Amino acid sequence: MPLTPDQISEIESARATPRHTLRAVSEGMEAHLYRAHEVLDHGFVRVIDYMGDDGAIVQAARVSYGAGTKAARDDAGLIRYLMRHWHSTPFEMCEVKLHVKLPIFVARQWIRHRTANVNEYSARYSIMDREFYIPAPEQLAAQSQVNNQGRGAVLDGPEAARVLEILKTDAARSYDHYEEMLSQEGKQGLARELARMNLPANIYTQWYWKTDLHNLFHFLRLRADRHAQYEIRVYAETIARIVADWVPAAYGAFEDYRMGGATLSAKGLDCLRRMLAGEAVTQENSGMSKGEWREFEQLIAGN
Amino acid sequence: MPLTPDQISEIESARATPRHTLRAVSEGMEAHLYRAHEVLDHGFVRVIDYMGDDGAIVQAARVSYGAGTKAARDDAGLIRYLMRHWHSTPFEMCEVKLHVKLPIFVARQWIRHRTANVNEYSARYSIMDREFYIPAPEQLAAQSQVNNQGRGAVLDGPEAARVLEILKTDAARSYDHYEEMLSQEGKQGLARELARMNLPANIYTQWYWKTDLHNLFHFLRLRADRHAQYEIRVYAETIARIVADWVPAAYGAFEDYRMGGATLSAKGLDCLRRMLAGEAVTQENSGMSKGEWREFEQLIAGN
Amino acid sequence: MPLTPDQISEIESARATPRHTLRAVSEGMEAHLYRAHEVLDHGFVRVIDYMGDDGAIVQAARVSYGAGTKAARDDAGLIRYLMRHWHSTPFEMCEVKLHVKLPIFVARQWIRHRTANVNEYSARYSIMDREFYIPAPEQLAAQSQVNNQGRGAVLDGPEAARVLEILKTDAARSYDHYEEMLSQEGKQGLARELARMNLPANIYTQWYWKTDLHNLFHFLRLRADRHAQYEIRVYAETIARIVADWVPAAYGAFEDYRMGGATLSAKGLDCLRRMLAGEAVTQENSGMSKGEWREFEQLIAGN
Amino acid sequence: MPLTPDQISEIESARATPRHTLRAVSEGMEAHLYRAHEVLDHGFVRVIDYMGDDGAIVQAARVSYGAGTKAARDDAGLIRYLMRHWHSTPFEMCEVKLHVKLPIFVARQWIRHRTANVNEYSARYSIMDREFYIPAPEQLAAQSQVNNQGRGAVLDGPEAARVLEILKTDAARSYDHYEEMLSQEGKQGLARELARMNLPANIYTQWYWKTDLHNLFHFLRLRADRHAQYEIRVYAETIARIVADWVPAAYGAFEDYRMGGATLSAKGLDCLRRMLAGEAVTQENSGMSKGEWREFEQLIAGN
Repeated sequence: MPLTPDQISEIESARATPRHTLRAVSEGMEAHLYRAHEVLDHGFVRVIDYMGDDGAIVQAARVSYGAGTKAARDDAGLIRYLMRHWHSTPFEMCEVKLHVKLPIFVARQWIRHRTANVNEYSARYSIMDREFYIPAPEQLAAQSQVNNQGRGAVLDGPEAARVLEILKTDAARSYDHYEEMLSQEGKQGLARELARMNLPANIYTQWYWKTDLHNLFHFLRLRADRHAQYEIRVYAETIARIVADWVPAAYGAFEDYRMGGATLSAKGLDCLRRMLAGEAVTQENSGMSKGEWREFEQLIAGN
Repeated sequence: MPLTPDQISEIESARATPRHTLRAVSEGMEAHLYRAHEVLDHGFVRVIDYMGDDGAIVQAARVSYGAGTKAARDDAGLIRYLMRHWHSTPFEMCEVKLHVKLPIFVARQWIRHRTANVNEYSARYSIMDREFYIPAPEQLAAQSQVNNQGRGAVLDGPEAARVLEILKTDAARSYDHYEEMLSQEGKQGLARELARMNLPANIYTQWYWKTDLHNLFHFLRLRADRHAQYEIRVYAETIARIVADWVPAAYGAFEDYRMGGATLSAKGLDCLRRMLAGEAVTQENSGMSKGEWREFEQLIAGN
Repeated sequence: MPLTPDQISEIESARATPRHTLRAVSEGMEAHLYRAHEVLDHGFVRVIDYMGDDGAIVQAARVSYGAGTKAARDDAGLIRYLMRHWHSTPFEMCEVKLHVKLPIFVARQWIRHRTANVNEYSARYSIMDREFYIPAPEQLAAQSQVNNQGRGAVLDGPEAARVLEILKTDAARSYDHYEEMLSQEGKQGLARELARMNLPANIYTQWYWKTDLHNLFHFLRLRADRHAQYEIRVYAETIARIVADWVPAAYGAFEDYRMGGATLSAKGLDCLRRMLAGEAVTQENSGMSKGEWREFEQLIAGN
Repeated sequence: MPLTPDQISEIESARATPRHTLRAVSEGMEAHLYRAHEVLDHGFVRVIDYMGDDGAIVQAARVSYGAGTKAARDDAGLIRYLMRHWHSTPFEMCEVKLHVKLPIFVARQWIRHRTANVNEYSARYSIMDREFYIPAPEQLAAQSQVNNQGRGAVLDGPEAARVLEILKTDAARSYDHYEEMLSQEGKQGLARELARMNLPANIYTQWYWKTDLHNLFHFLRLRADRHAQYEIRVYAETIARIVADWVPAAYGAFEDYRMGGATLSAKGLDCLRRMLAGEAVTQENSGMSKGEWREFEQLIAGN
């Protein structure tokens, strides 16, 4: 369980005291505020704050004096238009701030998204908690034989058991040694900024992470994708469900045009037109490489 | 007067309906929401939305589960520490969204601050309003004789009158011609995206502009500075007063360390230490150029 | 003609003195260095500097010790793969610096691309040149009747003549008045930072603009698109031809996957699969709005 | 030794073939190209490419047609002026691309500088090398008693020996286990993207890192500072020496105004003026907190 009773009590206390505001309010998002959505074995995603709602996107696109339009239906139509034509700035007018607890190897992928604000728990200043990500058995996958950066089948019994044993004992030992090096009982105690180097990449860290809706959609498109590593994908999927409650119209457009959509090359478009005209198009007469053709076939077959 | 009765009524209606929220609320900022702070002859600054307060800075710096500390005094001390030591990320955790009406030549300086989100009124899509910035007589300054990008004394009578006449008649004529070119009465009507090129740089535009508190402070430091052009400085000063109400502790630290503070070079520090030790330091033995020495003297004299 | 004899002589002198370097060199780009590619009536694009070539993209993607692969063909294949799968960071490893002369209303669109470095000629510090963009007759288009931000047919005789007359005389008068306000003959002379506000948006400015290849591709995709305003599109097209000489493999991939490609929504993909399976799909049973269906039909028809 | 004979031979081969270019060339930087500057026990910094020199800063600041001024002395004066008055965009016109090998805990600090381009060696795709940072004995420091994120005295004999033993054996064991989990001899072999989670933060990674001179100076100011952690500071110091050879005038200005300079608060300036006027200023009558006063005293004492 990721939260201590003290932390739960802090969250409850923050949720107990609604206040008045004149700002745009998203009821769907208010329901999420401060609550911890559990991810992996010790991680979570918590919404700390947000700015804007679907109406704020329309309001900014129109540079209007009041709120969005009266009719929610018109707003949704405009939002779909903006998404379809790659307008990015109106979506940047919504902002969200999350508190995330995540393994360091996930944090290292996540931080590559540069258009965001981050405050991470400091292992120079503070002592890390004894919490490590240990994959569930069904996530213990072999190296893919066809994709250098993918997973294959789930590991079999003895091999799986050995991997779990290694991960657990190495994590425990490295943390024991971390504590021993830090300890000042009868000795000086190594500096925190040095002792942390012994800790493996599956230890949990946490941060406050803030970004705008446009950049969040970009993050979700890459990280909720089936090619993303499972351990970051579950965070992205959790956030996606929250966003669907926050800005339902924008999320609907995002799902249709980005998550569920696809990009075709000029060659792909040409093949498609020939196929619709009844021509038998093959890799040989497509102008595509074998790899591209395979991806193209999968796309039009829908798998 | 910058606002029409319709616009005022939209603002009043937005202010009339407080709602509940669990988010951090800044009472000082709620009082500003949606109201138009008048700037120059037709411009304004309106707060459309905000995220966070002083406590949110502390909360992010500590990556904490609850809100900031109980004691506002401790928060202020930590905020001063963060500002003094150039910590930027906790200040990035607050965000503000403004609706600004401003002359195009001011907008062209403003947009140079790239870490911000902008939706500008489109002159490709819409027709510009007939509103131009005409300087007040006391702002009609001569070219500075000592500073290539500064102002000297206020212009004298006939010259001032002639300048005002030029600005007013050219603005009126260019707008008449803009309307004539657009007009479709008995003719085709020039495309809006072309007709706008006839409009001078003192016509007003408007935009939604959103940025975080760290980048806003950077904007204020450069644009509320006495070397900034008057016409952008008055916008910066208006925003500064709003920020003082929004995050009083952070603004206090900003005023002390950034606006009121100064940076000394290694040479400047060396001279200062020699002066404090009783030595008579002059430009000749300072190691500085004449220009640097003049700026150094002004700094320690406090003018 | 955009360049004075002095400027041409500076350019010739810069081109006359090749030096040795150990850096990656793109012969295609060396041929462009410093030369002015004329755009519109007084504008230009000049390459001032560049970093990297096709090999540099591969080298960075592989984090390799030496240069790219031996075989240019392998490089091109990898570059196509990176483009197809939206890898952006290897393309960020190439950089280009341009000197551009352009009308202010074009500059105002251009500057919206924030991930770039800009030094613009300062009208606070310096005096602007008397150069204005006056559209060629075939560019004098009417407002589109179907697209609020587009152009329709070219204007007819008397209306066209009147528009050109307005643009020319207003430009000339505003510049005469600009000079008169600045003049210090027998008077003080208005500050440059104020006088400039009388100049219309078709006056030319110039800047140094530097960006990386990934962001440049994004710029080209939006600005060389047929929906972009003609006056910025000609700059984008000029730059596109330069990029094709600089990094031919990357440009080829960009043309196929971005410029010539298209994005389909989930609904669009679904319709396509049904059509390929022989079903008669219409707007009514497509799940799309009329506007979306029209765009979808154009896409698969290839016009 | 960080480089294999193959890598050294690739570097030698890249250095053996100078080519002609018309671009700005910095002779000081050409001497560094591709060479590995060793840092820590297995790390390095290598210059892969650069754009611009001191003249390019001046050229951009003036938006000029040719190169910088004729006189290097004038260039240096202008560069000092630009640095003193916080002009950032001319410095952004120079760019550098580095290949860096560094421990992961250092990479995690480094990546916080967001305005940069990065391609990191992928542990999803590839297998990490068996190279770990083990501090030299004189860097094995105790936790500071006064600064939560600093180091105190060097550790004594038995404690130091025990720390080194832990770091070495844990690194070796974790890597042995990493290889065992990956191994496909007689079993499936765990996916690389999972196996890497067992590796500690002192394992070396490598990346291509590209940034502009303005942002590089910001990086150096924070990371070559005496408050920075030693392990990143040595990288910053290595880069600083390279930059001094690349753009000597800009680096000189940076040293004087940023590295050697200091920022005083409004309160600090006020105290200083009172001290220069002969007043005895103490913490009590300074208006500063004890912490601020201590820092102020250190600043004016020069230690």
